Amino acid sequence: MEKILRIDTGAAGGPKVSEEPLGQYAGLGGRALTSTLVAKEVPPLCHPLGAENKLVIAPGLLSGTVAAMSGRLSIGAKSPLTGGIKEANSGGQPAQVIARLGYAAIVIEGKPEGDDLYKIFINKDGVKITKDNSLKMLPNYDLVEKMKAEYGDKVAMISIGPAGEMKMGAASIACTDMELRPTRHAGRGGLGAVMGSKCIKVIVLDDTGMKMRSPKDPEKYKEANKKFVDGLRAHPVTGQGLPAYGTNVLTNILNEAGGYPTYNFKEGRFDKAHLISGETQAETEVARGGLATHGCHRGCVIRCSGSYHDKDGHFLTKQPEYETVWAHGGNCGICDLDAIAMLDFLDDNFGLDTIEMGVTIGVAMEAGIIPCGDAEGAIRLVKEVGQGTPLGRILGSGAAVTGRVFGVERVPVVKGQALPAYDPRAVQGIGVTYATSPMGADHTAGYAVATNILKVGGDVDPLKPEGQIELSRNLQIATAAIDSTGMCLFIAFALLDQPETFQALIDMLNAFYGLNLDAGGVADLGKMVLKTEREFNKKAGFTNAGDRLPRFFTTEPVAPHNITFGVKDEELDQVFNW
Amino acid sequence: MEKILRIDTGAAGGPKVSEEPLGQYAGLGGRALTSTLVAKEVPPLCHPLGAENKLVIAPGLLSGTVAAMSGRLSIGAKSPLTGGIKEANSGGQPAQVIARLGYAAIVIEGKPEGDDLYKIFINKDGVKITKDNSLKMLPNYDLVEKMKAEYGDKVAMISIGPAGEMKMGAASIACTDMELRPTRHAGRGGLGAVMGSKCIKVIVLDDTGMKMRSPKDPEKYKEANKKFVDGLRAHPVTGQGLPAYGTNVLTNILNEAGGYPTYNFKEGRFDKAHLISGETQAETEVARGGLATHGCHRGCVIRCSGSYHDKDGHFLTKQPEYETVWAHGGNCGICDLDAIAMLDFLDDNFGLDTIEMGVTIGVAMEAGIIPCGDAEGAIRLVKEVGQGTPLGRILGSGAAVTGRVFGVERVPVVKGQALPAYDPRAVQGIGVTYATSPMGADHTAGYAVATNILKVGGDVDPLKPEGQIELSRNLQIATAAIDSTGMCLFIAFALLDQPETFQALIDMLNAFYGLNLDAGGVADLGKMVLKTEREFNKKAGFTNAGDRLPRFFTTEPVAPHNITFGVKDEELDQVFNW
Repeated sequence: MEKILRIDTGAAGGPKVSEEPLGQYAGLGGRALTSTLVAKEVPPLCHPLGAENKLVIAPGLLSGTVAAMSGRLSIGAKSPLTGGIKEANSGGQPAQVIARLGYAAIVIEGKPEGDDLYKIFINKDGVKITKDNSLKMLPNYDLVEKMKAEYGDKVAMISIGPAGEMKMGAASIACTDMELRPTRHAGRGGLGAVMGSKCIKVIVLDDTGMKMRSPKDPEKYKEANKKFVDGLRAHPVTGQGLPAYGTNVLTNILNEAGGYPTYNFKEGRFDKAHLISGETQAETEVARGGLATHGCHRGCVIRCSGSYHDKDGHFLTKQPEYETVWAHGGNCGICDLDAIAMLDFLDDNFGLDTIEMGVTIGVAMEAGIIPCGDAEGAIRLVKEVGQGTPLGRILGSGAAVTGRVFGVERVPVVKGQALPAYDPRAVQGIGVTYATSPMGADHTAGYAVATNILKVGGDVDPLKPEGQIELSRNLQIATAAIDSTGMCLFIAFALLDQPETFQALIDMLNAFYGLNLDAGGVADLGKMVLKTEREFNKKAGFTNAGDRLPRFFTTEPVAPHNITFGVKDEELDQVFNW
Repeated sequence: MEKILRIDTGAAGGPKVSEEPLGQYAGLGGRALTSTLVAKEVPPLCHPLGAENKLVIAPGLLSGTVAAMSGRLSIGAKSPLTGGIKEANSGGQPAQVIARLGYAAIVIEGKPEGDDLYKIFINKDGVKITKDNSLKMLPNYDLVEKMKAEYGDKVAMISIGPAGEMKMGAASIACTDMELRPTRHAGRGGLGAVMGSKCIKVIVLDDTGMKMRSPKDPEKYKEANKKFVDGLRAHPVTGQGLPAYGTNVLTNILNEAGGYPTYNFKEGRFDKAHLISGETQAETEVARGGLATHGCHRGCVIRCSGSYHDKDGHFLTKQPEYETVWAHGGNCGICDLDAIAMLDFLDDNFGLDTIEMGVTIGVAMEAGIIPCGDAEGAIRLVKEVGQGTPLGRILGSGAAVTGRVFGVERVPVVKGQALPAYDPRAVQGIGVTYATSPMGADHTAGYAVATNILKVGGDVDPLKPEGQIELSRNLQIATAAIDSTGMCLFIAFALLDQPETFQALIDMLNAFYGLNLDAGGVADLGKMVLKTEREFNKKAGFTNAGDRLPRFFTTEPVAPHNITFGVKDEELDQVFNW
């Protein structure tokens, strides 16, 4: 992981490959690397789909090692959805494989003339890029099958579906899981469109013949990893809730808390939530021969995923995440788990962010395109996105554009990106994160739900503005650091409650790289990342006015608590004033 | 003109009317009044289609008087297209009628529940607002006929077509001309969508029984007006070029100068320009029994309009403006005057900005929706906009959204608004105006073409960056002031070359209001307006990064001069540093 692989897609005569040492980027990984490289090399005012933008794919600092949970991949660029800097991150196998192949980052840059499509194969012998127009408009599942026939099944893949090829704002980048299915996605911010603009359909990765990355101090590393795993297993969220029911364990919890956005954020509680809860989902999965507990990448000890079978017992999709079940479910008044699973499959197959698509359909319902609660209509709409019909093009461009096109006022987006599954009026800490994160509305950027609702890492009343700024600030800093390690963000539950588990993570970093980091050093890394991202966004034209929720969250009270978002603008402006 | 008429469309029980004295807005008219009122009363971060936005309709300071050329109407709001403050202005009859009815402004505020549509009738006896859902989705020409049957033909009207009702970003507000046709439009910035969001279809104005507004010093006023008219008649542009060929006299001139954007700004010269030039257009009009010279409102002495008849000699549309002929013509590779006139009619009828629509179709051509040069295809597309099909919805949202939806990189917009008919690389002064005007890309905000190309008001080389900042600055200041007087901007040609005509305008203002303004005072008014507008935009989230042309103008040289836009970013940031 001492090299950067660059692929210049705009070179005369076809894509050109070069390798270089990490150089100025030494010591960085994951989000710290993608954001630093984008900030240094991409002009903030460039067009996101132009030759000047760069797609940066970076495993985390501990990816490719024996460390548990270290399989997250960061993908960065200037976002076509927000117009700002973006890091979207994904589970699955590719991070481990890229790291073991020795690359700290793969940078896809330039822009080809014409519309030929390319596939990239990377193994221990090097990089091979091939024009392959037979892949055009292939959905991710078909694509993966085709590549498997060609390259065998000991590979991992990073790919785009038709949405990415059509350069849609909601287009994701898919990563294959342990079963070589395109189920894990760097979903947010339209990064699939950036990959599509570079005419790269798929990157096939094969680490055969490569070794696990070895730490400077193997003994200490092993020991720290063990403590780390013990901590994760001991915590109720990572040791019990997530394995048993997956992320969808949150449906009943958020609904009970009145923070479950229903009918395009009109209400905070969905009377049919029990029909789509994690409990119901797990029961359905097990009854049909699927799995309620499963890992998305080797080395995962939380195993919050699963597999969802259809009524006939055939695999339909991986266990839909809480945010997906919410976006396509309660947010649209839909309470049919099979329909939601089908929507999840279609999103994965076409290469679409499930949050953006669900919220977009909610906006389309508000515009009267289909009735609220119409599951069949929602499926039809997502199919139109995959086909690229004019209506599909609109919806595939995301909630903000859909709101513009249909003249809808109530559009839940920040910086052009759809709000996730927690109402910022009933969970005010997450509202601060939505408003201020350089990523646009993003729950993973500073998951204040943990402390507001789950009472992890303390207890801050979700209904009051007090304490939310500090909470979101600290979580955003910690998250930016964790996103740089390659670690799954879910480790944060244990880290927040167990000082010894946090220390184990620091010990791993120190043992691996021969460093002397302490908690302050980790925070400094997070601050550096946030500062870099904020500066990019400022040059791209963002001001504090972009760090605001849509106006209706401050004017429309939401049931059952009948409250509006109460954190003041001047307070929001203090989040990055540490 | 000492009163403000307010119509609260959100009042319980239906729209509520109130009148108030000018108060804090005393001494303001036209753009100075719309921009000041919007800046004071509209929250910069509100949704443009929400209850907090206000549509302000204001005649100029000299409207409703005997002064020649004083029939321009300013309409202001927060723009759904740019997200910033907007003043769009229109000729036609309404400004004079509103002024004589005694209103300095009509302010339409609030937002009704439900989707009932209203018509407003205003005469000397007051204001009558009536629910009339029979008007729904009526195109402007049909609407005007229906209103004429109801209210007689001694009225003037302000209305929206289906585009405004659908709240499209390209929706205009139509004003009737002397023949009571909806041919004059406050076109830019999607203000029709704001009127649509307030559910107001049409304002019918009747000044029967009202008198011409009388100056403080009638003799001096009359005398100054005579000098003013003499100056306009003596200038070659306002006395000869515009009357003979209309604004389309510019086609041959800009094409010769290599500044005529062709094929979505790919080239600076159109080899078929002679087929759609003002000369050809005037000849065609006269041969078919139309008019090549005609005024758009009573009191016009330039008379740059006309009427365009179809091949059978029937009225098709008013003489299309240069920018319209360019947008639907050369910009799309279309060289058929009849098709362009049909597009002009369709735009007027559906209530669409011709510049935004033409540029949007150019972007759609770049996306491959229809071939470049396809006149029938372009007509079909505009009809889809009027029908509100999904494709029509996309296109009606303007060029920026269309570029987003189809993943097009070369989208000629600034602040989300389409660039008009002058290539900023070959006419660099207008490039400065496009980039920096608070209005978004707008040629009328500081018409540097005058000095760059027509050599009016001096001579600044259009191909070099030198002198363009000062030129654009001075013109933006002068324009903001002229837009506040109710005067047609075309008076500027004479004002720039003839100090005595400029003095005559100042004398008119002084004689009418009993003031002692000098040239410096007029400039101060312009500066105040620009400062107000810039401050609103800043609070709405705009920074210097928004004061830039799209990147391809600085990277793609344009033929025949093979140059890029050369004014540096740091220089652009000096435009408002006076």
